[in-house]
Amino acid sequence: MQTDVERIAGYDYGSQEVANSPVTMKELEQLKQTITLDSDDLRYLRMAGGILENQTESIINIWRGVISSTPHLACYFKDANGKSDENYKARAKERFKQWIIDVCCKPYDQDWLNYQHEIGLRHTYEKKNKTDEASAPPHIPLRYVIAFTAVVNDTIKPFLAKNGHSLGVIEKMHKAWCKAVILHVTLWSRAYCSDNIW
Amino acid sequence: MQTDVERIAGYDYGSQEVANSPVTMKELEQLKQTITLDSDDLRYLRMAGGILENQTESIINIWRGVISSTPHLACYFKDANGKSDENYKARAKERFKQWIIDVCCKPYDQDWLNYQHEIGLRHTYEKKNKTDEASAPPHIPLRYVIAFTAVVNDTIKPFLAKNGHSLGVIEKMHKAWCKAVILHVTLWSRAYCSDNIW
Repeated sequence: MQTDVERIAGYDYGSQEVANSPVTMKELEQLKQTITLDSDDLRYLRMAGGILENQTESIINIWRGVISSTPHLACYFKDANGKSDENYKARAKERFKQWIIDVCCKPYDQDWLNYQHEIGLRHTYEKKNKTDEASAPPHIPLRYVIAFTAVVNDTIKPFLAKNGHSLGVIEKMHKAWCKAVILHVTLWSRAYCSDNIW
Repeated sequence: MQTDVERIAGYDYGSQEVANSPVTMKELEQLKQTITLDSDDLRYLRMAGGILENQTESIINIWRGVISSTPHLACYFKDANGKSDENYKARAKERFKQWIIDVCCKPYDQDWLNYQHEIGLRHTYEKKNKTDEASAPPHIPLRYVIAFTAVVNDTIKPFLAKNGHSLGVIEKMHKAWCKAVILHVTLWSRAYCSDNIW
């Protein structure tokens, strides 16, 4: 019997399809220290996960709304004729929904680290389009990947407030989310750089 | 007569020493759209600038505290013998203080764009140490530059709250600050990448 997660097309988390990340566990630890992501943050992330898990469709719709209304972002889902690739969008959407849950709930272990690198690669010349046999532009520039964290971090807050927690607790969940997202995007940037630059 | 700003060593904002950024004004506009940095944000940024301008020493001390207590970050201010370069640290600190004000108060025009690229270069093999004739490691890895935004964005909030504004206004200033910082770091990342990657 398949779980929901197993049915997400191209979601290769923890599978043999995913190579080892070039980032070491020691480098990951140093990144967590750089971000000051601590055990308290991880606790609030888990709490955030419980609140966000039933809202992932609405959250992605907000993010996709920004992308759709921004031609220089929307183009990365379009084919050479400028036609939106609905199959590609739908598949990537399911993975992006699962990503929200994974940010909050997965242990940041080797499987997780490997999959972050895989996500990075899937934005670059090396692997973009391949998972979904799409024919959209072959590379999303690094600048958009970094810049879009502003949207991902800003727009999550109302969703964190949906379960009636105090402002103080919402604030702590949001802080933890923002740190975690920066960690993820930092790891994705590895796919864009050589080792001596990154 | 020199202004305070003119007395900041190595602060070459707007000077002929600073080359044109390879980033175009059109690319900048697209980045602002990607971040959803709008006129409302710019208004709250100006307000934030008025609150932060007399607190820059304390703010940098918080950030430097994180760096000093994190050996893999502190090393970028140390010479080959592991000795902290106090002259380098002091000069860079004054520029970093001014940066806080500039984030909030400067128009995001060509001079500003050029100087962001200069700041990026000063973190890389191309220009690190040169401005201050330091002999610290020649390159700060991109991952630490991206990751440290989490600290810069998280720790600013109490400083924004110092002038007794309502929670709603503090929130809007903080949102604007976070977006602006992501914009700056995105522009710095240009110095780490070739054009077809960035």
